[in-house]
Amino acid sequence: MTIDYAEEVLKGSPRAVARVITWLENDDERAKACMEKLYPHTGNSYVVGITGAPGAGKSSLTDKLTHHFRSNGLTVGIVAVDPTSPFTGGAILGDRVRMSELTNDPGVFIRSMATRGFLGGLSQATGNVVKVMQASGKDIILIETVGVGQDEVEVMRIADTTCLILVPGLGDVIQSMKAGVMEIADIYAINKSDLPGAHQLCAEVTNRLSQDSYFKKKAWTPPIIQTVATEDIGISELLDSITSHRNHQVETGSLLEKRRERTRQETLQMIHYELFRIIKKHLSENGRMDKMIEAILSNKENPYSLMEQIVSECIRLPGKS
Amino acid sequence: MTIDYAEEVLKGSPRAVARVITWLENDDERAKACMEKLYPHTGNSYVVGITGAPGAGKSSLTDKLTHHFRSNGLTVGIVAVDPTSPFTGGAILGDRVRMSELTNDPGVFIRSMATRGFLGGLSQATGNVVKVMQASGKDIILIETVGVGQDEVEVMRIADTTCLILVPGLGDVIQSMKAGVMEIADIYAINKSDLPGAHQLCAEVTNRLSQDSYFKKKAWTPPIIQTVATEDIGISELLDSITSHRNHQVETGSLLEKRRERTRQETLQMIHYELFRIIKKHLSENGRMDKMIEAILSNKENPYSLMEQIVSECIRLPGKS
Repeated sequence: MTIDYAEEVLKGSPRAVARVITWLENDDERAKACMEKLYPHTGNSYVVGITGAPGAGKSSLTDKLTHHFRSNGLTVGIVAVDPTSPFTGGAILGDRVRMSELTNDPGVFIRSMATRGFLGGLSQATGNVVKVMQASGKDIILIETVGVGQDEVEVMRIADTTCLILVPGLGDVIQSMKAGVMEIADIYAINKSDLPGAHQLCAEVTNRLSQDSYFKKKAWTPPIIQTVATEDIGISELLDSITSHRNHQVETGSLLEKRRERTRQETLQMIHYELFRIIKKHLSENGRMDKMIEAILSNKENPYSLMEQIVSECIRLPGKS
Repeated sequence: MTIDYAEEVLKGSPRAVARVITWLENDDERAKACMEKLYPHTGNSYVVGITGAPGAGKSSLTDKLTHHFRSNGLTVGIVAVDPTSPFTGGAILGDRVRMSELTNDPGVFIRSMATRGFLGGLSQATGNVVKVMQASGKDIILIETVGVGQDEVEVMRIADTTCLILVPGLGDVIQSMKAGVMEIADIYAINKSDLPGAHQLCAEVTNRLSQDSYFKKKAWTPPIIQTVATEDIGISELLDSITSHRNHQVETGSLLEKRRERTRQETLQMIHYELFRIIKKHLSENGRMDKMIEAILSNKENPYSLMEQIVSECIRLPGKS
């Protein structure tokens, strides 16, 4: 008798969750059937994104937040899409010990993800992993990622609430603000706020937020929380802010709107990559691709007109001749 | 009389180059006709990628390399896809002054690019900008980018030779190695090599290269060059390494192979995004997309089966029923 892994995920089996995620990573065809079954059971958890530069203390904060959520009786799934994260091997010994503590808690499921190599893009892969964890019944999903690069910004769009972690002295404030990370942050945490420069950083962010026309127009003003993750200082305030942001979004209807937009983007992306997969396979199978490349390299063809040719051959829009 | 911008680009007009790049950025339909005309005139320049963490001194190195290339009588195009780069506004005063020096040289064309928001992806956008510069007759194209994130790694695949810039004390060696940047580097530059820790960093990289099975299999062993960009130290050695790598690739045929593979990827990507663009437009036009999203949100449909439906409706592979 074969095991119904979707059924096992819905029962909360960590082994089944791990297996389905591996299928997703390997582009195994069993993943799709599974995800179809799991899909109706997703969307019930609250998804929190933790982003910030390497060294900002994201993993310590994630860890402490997890302990607080657990104390409140909530189960937690952690997706670490961060090459410098302890989950993915960049740990110092203390981190490893701490993490193994969480690993032994059946109410916590941790999965690290490489930041590259996903056929359908990092954010689609992360979105699928989040869905599997949601289907397994986790109340809170924490996504931890380095806030650099467009990939990571895209990943953060999966979160219902995004926390940007800043630290004094890293000189990364201006940088993160430039990279568009500022716009997606719902909550700022000034971590390591016992270090010199914390007050100044806090003032800078406050100032920037009050000046920025983008934030002036928004109904939600991002709070700035001072934390020292390693000492468990400010974590319950951070938790309260996350709860406030959630309530705000539920009351204003913006949570539903955000999820609607996310579903739109996800669905479009899925269509996008499926198209790519099919066309690539088709062009490889009949040797067409090789002929095309040779024609381009010998200047007999150019990719722009070849593209038009292929597209007009392959596309058939219903209702159009 | 209308101006033939493709013709003007081929004559080397910086104004026309800027205009066509703007069309590309805005997804203006005039870009395509232009690119078709320019395409046969691309591929004659040598493309060098400069990558490394923020603060590694990429822009100083790019600047000094440009001066050396100019002294050798070569014209240079610079594409800066780096949010922290002086080209894009993150400059300290000294950088700005230095850059304006280059800007006044008609043998140099500089274009900065935002790292997000490109419909067809950052690497496709960068590839097109490189092609316009090539068509305008620039001998060398330098692409400068932060080596973090999959986007930037993809951008580096456009380069014929990729230089990874490391600096002592940033603690980013292990990180970059993990992130897969190591595999795409043809040359390592240890910049700010007058700082403490430079020798150790050099030893670490040497050690890592000698142990890595990936590099053992390769015909080219990446050299490690010590530089102090601000003092113009090591730049001519870096230039020599780039020349050696070019010669190596010409002799072994790997340059042609690399360009063949790049053409394949570029063409596939173009087809991919064009198909997606058409289908996305189609789904929006007839209100289908909105209906789909509502069906998904109300759990009447799931995106996985909708995807299959859309794709099978819209795609018709020649030779298949």
